[in-house]
Amino acid sequence: MNTPSGVAYINREFVPISEAKISVLDWGFLRSDATYDVVHVWKGRFFRLDTHIDRFIASLEKIHMTLPVSRQELEKILAECVIRSGHEDAYVEMILTRGVSPTFSRDPRDAINQLICFAIPFGWILRPEERENGLSVFISDIQRISSASIDPRVKNYHWLDLVMGLYDAYEHDAKAAILTDAAGNITEGPGFNVFTVKDNQIATPDAGVLEGITRRSALEIAHELKFDVVERPISRDEPLNADEVFATSTAGGIMPITKLNGRDIGSGSMGPMTRQIHDAYWAKHLDDTWSESVQSVQART
Amino acid sequence: MNTPSGVAYINREFVPISEAKISVLDWGFLRSDATYDVVHVWKGRFFRLDTHIDRFIASLEKIHMTLPVSRQELEKILAECVIRSGHEDAYVEMILTRGVSPTFSRDPRDAINQLICFAIPFGWILRPEERENGLSVFISDIQRISSASIDPRVKNYHWLDLVMGLYDAYEHDAKAAILTDAAGNITEGPGFNVFTVKDNQIATPDAGVLEGITRRSALEIAHELKFDVVERPISRDEPLNADEVFATSTAGGIMPITKLNGRDIGSGSMGPMTRQIHDAYWAKHLDDTWSESVQSVQART
Repeated sequence: MNTPSGVAYINREFVPISEAKISVLDWGFLRSDATYDVVHVWKGRFFRLDTHIDRFIASLEKIHMTLPVSRQELEKILAECVIRSGHEDAYVEMILTRGVSPTFSRDPRDAINQLICFAIPFGWILRPEERENGLSVFISDIQRISSASIDPRVKNYHWLDLVMGLYDAYEHDAKAAILTDAAGNITEGPGFNVFTVKDNQIATPDAGVLEGITRRSALEIAHELKFDVVERPISRDEPLNADEVFATSTAGGIMPITKLNGRDIGSGSMGPMTRQIHDAYWAKHLDDTWSESVQSVQART
Repeated sequence: MNTPSGVAYINREFVPISEAKISVLDWGFLRSDATYDVVHVWKGRFFRLDTHIDRFIASLEKIHMTLPVSRQELEKILAECVIRSGHEDAYVEMILTRGVSPTFSRDPRDAINQLICFAIPFGWILRPEERENGLSVFISDIQRISSASIDPRVKNYHWLDLVMGLYDAYEHDAKAAILTDAAGNITEGPGFNVFTVKDNQIATPDAGVLEGITRRSALEIAHELKFDVVERPISRDEPLNADEVFATSTAGGIMPITKLNGRDIGSGSMGPMTRQIHDAYWAKHLDDTWSESVQSVQART
């Protein structure tokens, strides 16, 4: 087994990622009763760390969990994982699980919440050749879990629908899937939000999706660029006729989708508006407003 | 931490349950990409082992996983966990997780599925006094994850809706929750199916629920007892006016629900039809048709 190189924080210790293991009795596993967030480090700098930690804390509070460390301690733990890993470009995950109760009661209020953090190499949803030429995606009839069941603002591991969407995509000769909702609108894919561009208007679904930080970054950049941008329902047929379609994810940033259900979208490579947002997004990684060196986070007092 | 005493099978070894741990990178944790089943042992006998294994194999095939051992090997592993644990009454869980791919690719087809089994003491959803006097339950507006998203016949750990239902119940002075669906019908609770009895007709939801083995046992016993029994949609108000309501679960069998949304159901203790099904259910535990000694499963050739 070729575990990626990395460092984890678990049970209040830093260990190699290969040794980071949780009890099979943790409700985070047996009930997927957990929340998480992923921030990335690029060229030694955290990207929008405060925004990710804001969301993580909002998520865990919504599901009645308690962070066992202070916010500042959490920031230092994340920085320490990155520094110990030696990675300049890293994918940094923080997880809070329900844990287990000391008496193994079934009452989640009795459980002791467990914090796990780790830094591994920065991962791309796309392979290198896809970063320019784009991804082939299938719009599946599988419905994304409804917000009437699970609050999508709580970043969560309820992904079996997304995984079954991937198998659906593979059967249709695509590499990734976008799920729909009961009203027939598109929602999101495994780990990414979706944007369309048509007649210079940029649109992204307004409901039933994770409010991704990269999604937010794309919206904010689009506003800065004075683009016409709107959050609204997008029917499943609309992206098929779009000029450009792109995905947003911490694991890759702004990524062109150039084939949908076997049909070419736009020119078949990254479109002009996608490229402007893509370039601005990566430029922000060196901007002090949205990024901060890992060393300086570790040294925060 | 007071881990329950028990024995697990993991990474092809038998270990104390306190040492049974999975990698934090296993997709079974990071995507809740796993399926499982729970069979119980009562007075040294497995109850409906073949039925549970049939369902486990059907579940894992539906989500494109492969059992790394034969069916017979699985049976022997489960028996071995029970024997090594020393428990006469045991809760025996078998889990197959997606695992991790050797290259840590995001493609679930590359992952090596991981089998985990464990035997711990038999657990009750009810406390001792509730077994006779019944459970107080709240019918929550939180919707159970729809079968358009996750096939409920695949037994899965997508439980955050059920856990949030529990918190909803606690706020309403109840101990457990029943979730509803988009049509306003009842579905199931955390780990149990629901039955109502009204004017001598027994009913249980026909869709959007796990097809529990204890649910099936209750249906089969009701047929044997020549009761009028039907699987159909049940509106959220119907149980409030029922003569009897009961829950079915491997973790406790046939369990009276005597309070719903603060209202007393029936006489406030186990009703007469519930009792007949309850008694027949426990009698089946010594019947060779539905049960088999752990030793004899271990000795199967």
